[in-house]
Amino acid sequence: MLSRSIPVNLPNQAYKVVIQAGGQADLGSILQAQGLVKPGQKLLVVSNSQIFRHYGPDIMDSLLNAGADVEKCLIPAGERYKTPKTLQKIYDAALAHRLERGSALVALGGGVVGDMTGFAAATWLRGIGVIQVPTSLLAMVDAAIGGKTGVNHPQGKNLIGAFHQPRLVLIDPHTLQTLPRREFRAAMAEVIKYGVIWDAELFDLLENALVLDRVEALGDDLLGQILIRSCQAKVDVVTKDERESGLRAILNYGHTLGHALESITQYRQFNHGEAVGLGMLAAGEIAVRMGLWTEVDQSRQMQLVEKVKLPSAWPGDLDLDTVLTLLSSDKKVKDGQVRFILPQAIGQVIIHDQVPPAIIRGAIQSLQA
Amino acid sequence: MLSRSIPVNLPNQAYKVVIQAGGQADLGSILQAQGLVKPGQKLLVVSNSQIFRHYGPDIMDSLLNAGADVEKCLIPAGERYKTPKTLQKIYDAALAHRLERGSALVALGGGVVGDMTGFAAATWLRGIGVIQVPTSLLAMVDAAIGGKTGVNHPQGKNLIGAFHQPRLVLIDPHTLQTLPRREFRAAMAEVIKYGVIWDAELFDLLENALVLDRVEALGDDLLGQILIRSCQAKVDVVTKDERESGLRAILNYGHTLGHALESITQYRQFNHGEAVGLGMLAAGEIAVRMGLWTEVDQSRQMQLVEKVKLPSAWPGDLDLDTVLTLLSSDKKVKDGQVRFILPQAIGQVIIHDQVPPAIIRGAIQSLQA
Repeated sequence: MLSRSIPVNLPNQAYKVVIQAGGQADLGSILQAQGLVKPGQKLLVVSNSQIFRHYGPDIMDSLLNAGADVEKCLIPAGERYKTPKTLQKIYDAALAHRLERGSALVALGGGVVGDMTGFAAATWLRGIGVIQVPTSLLAMVDAAIGGKTGVNHPQGKNLIGAFHQPRLVLIDPHTLQTLPRREFRAAMAEVIKYGVIWDAELFDLLENALVLDRVEALGDDLLGQILIRSCQAKVDVVTKDERESGLRAILNYGHTLGHALESITQYRQFNHGEAVGLGMLAAGEIAVRMGLWTEVDQSRQMQLVEKVKLPSAWPGDLDLDTVLTLLSSDKKVKDGQVRFILPQAIGQVIIHDQVPPAIIRGAIQSLQA
Repeated sequence: MLSRSIPVNLPNQAYKVVIQAGGQADLGSILQAQGLVKPGQKLLVVSNSQIFRHYGPDIMDSLLNAGADVEKCLIPAGERYKTPKTLQKIYDAALAHRLERGSALVALGGGVVGDMTGFAAATWLRGIGVIQVPTSLLAMVDAAIGGKTGVNHPQGKNLIGAFHQPRLVLIDPHTLQTLPRREFRAAMAEVIKYGVIWDAELFDLLENALVLDRVEALGDDLLGQILIRSCQAKVDVVTKDERESGLRAILNYGHTLGHALESITQYRQFNHGEAVGLGMLAAGEIAVRMGLWTEVDQSRQMQLVEKVKLPSAWPGDLDLDTVLTLLSSDKKVKDGQVRFILPQAIGQVIIHDQVPPAIIRGAIQSLQA
């Protein structure tokens, strides 16, 4: 039975990422073991009704058995509800449950639940604890670890946010068996990302797998390896650069163009992971055109994207002027220069602030359907 | 000419509190000297129209002369606009001015402007810089220093907030000459507070002053001493406990009951400082009744409050049951126990979690008009 604990040692907060099959039913005792729950401890589980129906009862029982005083707060599902208005709902529940400074929120769900709950925790009473219990692969390998929290502004994703590290992250691979196939594939884009930016062995592992497009075909062992290696990569990078002042920017590989693509298509045509997959392919193509990495490696990356059955072609009707305009309003812009993460080899990327617009344009065109 | 720089050395951020007569007109060069502005640096000055009319033009000129790319954002004046909705206005201006991660907000105004601008800076792009330029005595000696930021929830003050240290605090005593008298007196409550909780010499200074109820009667020297000693007290306490995990709670002397009083009277009858003054008198009375400090010291505190011409009697028609109910919803409640800061001597207080409700009731009754 898979059980692994990855320590995250940050200057102001040390915590653990616990990867444990069936761990959700043990959340109470896992928290007890870490000294994170005591009798009467007030906890507020934030989730959406669909996820809560699946996993809520077990989690609530487990927390009640650990002696906690638990309430729940259900918020609407979906990125379009990741707004200040939904945040207000969480605040209202925090007030109604009379959370104190020693209380904590428990984020049970995917990235939207995790980001918003994390931000609510960062800003309620000037900061209370948050325990991340991601239920999607994307949230497990990405959003739940590292302390980035936020909500969307009508004109951009995550423009409103804060860094707020969780007290614990619990990853239970069992929950992935109910994950919709499209969500699973999208999350695999981030897994491929870790292979390209940090962990060549993970990349090899993915290349050697027979099937990568369905979670149920992976087998417990491969799934476990993917989770452990991806989480470890994220922890490594975050530990070296908690506040994204340098290295952490490499986690945005594929994201600069991915965000632009999501935004132009009004978050309807592609989900986040699909857009990131296309963003990685474009970044790889830019790197090839700038002489930074080889066509062979770019084609290996393309093959992995196709093996996962992620979209590998940019929409043919996309207006590239709009893409370039949008890039310059990305929050990662520094001194007016768009920042790209570009691969140099499998497992290694660089940060580049001087990509000529013509190369961006040409790279995307070469990938258009 | 008064000019003093108080260093604030926090683990993750060191900054200076600059107290300088006429300093506002030099803000640009003061920032340059600290390396906080460079050519093209994007800054957004947040203020309200009344304050901006007085001080905005000089500040903008000074920042422009330092080479910054400056815009302004005016928000409505008053505590009742310290809301998520007003915050949204600041976010919109940040977006319109295309602030980047290296950009900063400049909070020009009193505590409301400072708290909201600080919170906007804490949460825009997951945290950008903020420069605090307080224009009221209350903001100078209290809100602008120490990194507490926030907005109000309909059911409580500052329930939504974050710790976010400024990059610099500039205090220009010249701006106090236009401060309404009632505001000045209210702020003096916080000055008396520093005398009681931390600095017996400051208390003596206040006792020896001939007049304390009008800023124009103080003279530059006494006003300068009051500013320097009060800011130093706040810096001392904040440096020892940035996140209010222990010592910093002493800054809430008078605030537990003060907040309750403000809230019950719907923020109409008393301003913050007046309520704090009454809260301090009640805390002192509680301390006397618990045998913690002397009636002589309580009467010295009472005399200072009266010398400043702050209200010294609690409203006669106040329902004490409501007060006690409200206390238990204060965000400083820990494990259901209301936390009081109680004086033991001039310059020395303790934190007390076990004050019997009957004593709270009796202390307030003895102060009712």
